[in-house]
Amino acid sequence: MRRVLPAPDIAPQRLHQALRYAVLEGGKRVALAGAAVELIHAYSLVHDDLPCMDDDVLRRGKPTCHVEYDEPTALLVGDALHSLAFQVLGDYRLAEDAKTQLEMVKLLAAAAGSRGMAGGQAIDLESVGKALTVTELEFMHIHKTGAIIRASALLGARCGSGLGPRELGQLDLFAKLIGLAFQVVDDVLDAEGSTATLGKTAGKDAKDHKPTYVSAIGVARARELAQELRQNALDALAGFGERALRLRQIADFIVLRKF
Amino acid sequence: MRRVLPAPDIAPQRLHQALRYAVLEGGKRVALAGAAVELIHAYSLVHDDLPCMDDDVLRRGKPTCHVEYDEPTALLVGDALHSLAFQVLGDYRLAEDAKTQLEMVKLLAAAAGSRGMAGGQAIDLESVGKALTVTELEFMHIHKTGAIIRASALLGARCGSGLGPRELGQLDLFAKLIGLAFQVVDDVLDAEGSTATLGKTAGKDAKDHKPTYVSAIGVARARELAQELRQNALDALAGFGERALRLRQIADFIVLRKF
Repeated sequence: MRRVLPAPDIAPQRLHQALRYAVLEGGKRVALAGAAVELIHAYSLVHDDLPCMDDDVLRRGKPTCHVEYDEPTALLVGDALHSLAFQVLGDYRLAEDAKTQLEMVKLLAAAAGSRGMAGGQAIDLESVGKALTVTELEFMHIHKTGAIIRASALLGARCGSGLGPRELGQLDLFAKLIGLAFQVVDDVLDAEGSTATLGKTAGKDAKDHKPTYVSAIGVARARELAQELRQNALDALAGFGERALRLRQIADFIVLRKF
Repeated sequence: MRRVLPAPDIAPQRLHQALRYAVLEGGKRVALAGAAVELIHAYSLVHDDLPCMDDDVLRRGKPTCHVEYDEPTALLVGDALHSLAFQVLGDYRLAEDAKTQLEMVKLLAAAAGSRGMAGGQAIDLESVGKALTVTELEFMHIHKTGAIIRASALLGARCGSGLGPRELGQLDLFAKLIGLAFQVVDDVLDAEGSTATLGKTAGKDAKDHKPTYVSAIGVARARELAQELRQNALDALAGFGERALRLRQIADFIVLRKF
């Protein structure tokens, strides 16, 4: 990631320092396709934390970007990281051929856009103060966090030797289920966790009147649901054998973290 | 552009309506490589108009996106347009081969990022209230607007049959000069024009204590400079003959608009 980010002494220096602030240290780094996905993720966190969105002051145990720098700089940091993600996909050789790599551009852009992550954020905004059903919560999270998690898995698959359509389908199903599991666990941790273990402000969802799995079905059922999703996700990988060892470890990491 | 934008009845509907609001109707459409560049341009305008940036209420004769919708929606509109630009580059066949098209991804991403447009915005933020020299103004504008104008020209060149390195160099020089001319004209219009002819709030630069060519060298010299830049830009195209007719017309359009 340090190789991908502009050096902090290149003009405009303050912006480049702020880019590094927002990206380096911390983060879960589960992204299989690596830096490009992580840059999209980092941009979304910086923008989500802005006063006009979640208005959060703490992220990964540090002051959020707009608190450490200022609001316009944080806006530009998000925008610059967003562009940098596609610069990485255009600049480094990641796939066997340019055609496959161009598909990766399309895949990540679609996952980040209005029918993926940014769309999920819009649905999130509209759902504040509403009581959503589990089905409606799923629809929101499949966009908001699910699209990028699925893109990570599918980008990873395109970096290596080709998977067949059936295997790609199973991988996509795994990513979809584990993305939902991630969100269920996040909601439980937000309701029960402390700010120190989360690295971000705990209890914020309830305070902001955001619908969560905990508000929809309670903590006990949410814990069960996370385990069910994990099991279904692992089942989706049944045909992969040893090749899916890392993916299984990620599934466990997501569901069992601080639980 | 209507083909590229998601239909307004696709979920999330309000976001997709806001995307169309920000992109359709108006705009200068000088972008040679077309929709992708225009989407980057449109995203930058939506973000620039936000309260934490230029805090502007009028754009292209209409209320700005955050005024018509709301601030978080405008933030997401910019983000979604930004992703959509790269989705277009990944999705449509624009160049002779995938390798060239992947270069276009890299070119546009670099032009939009921290060493291009977003970087120029950061320099702009830091220059508020300062008296810049013409050289410093140039440095700012070469990033802020120049990078995308140059990328437009170079993307256009990659859509057709290949230009040699010398021709690409001349084209790039043309785009650089015409980009500066555009900014000089913009500063004169902002100082002298009315809100009605501009389609955006006139006199805003002086009010916001932004350094401009008018504040640096005065209106009369700024008008001369625009003409000199136009002439130098046209000279850069001397070797192109009839092929550069449209580019010459664009140069005239930029410098002679409402002048």
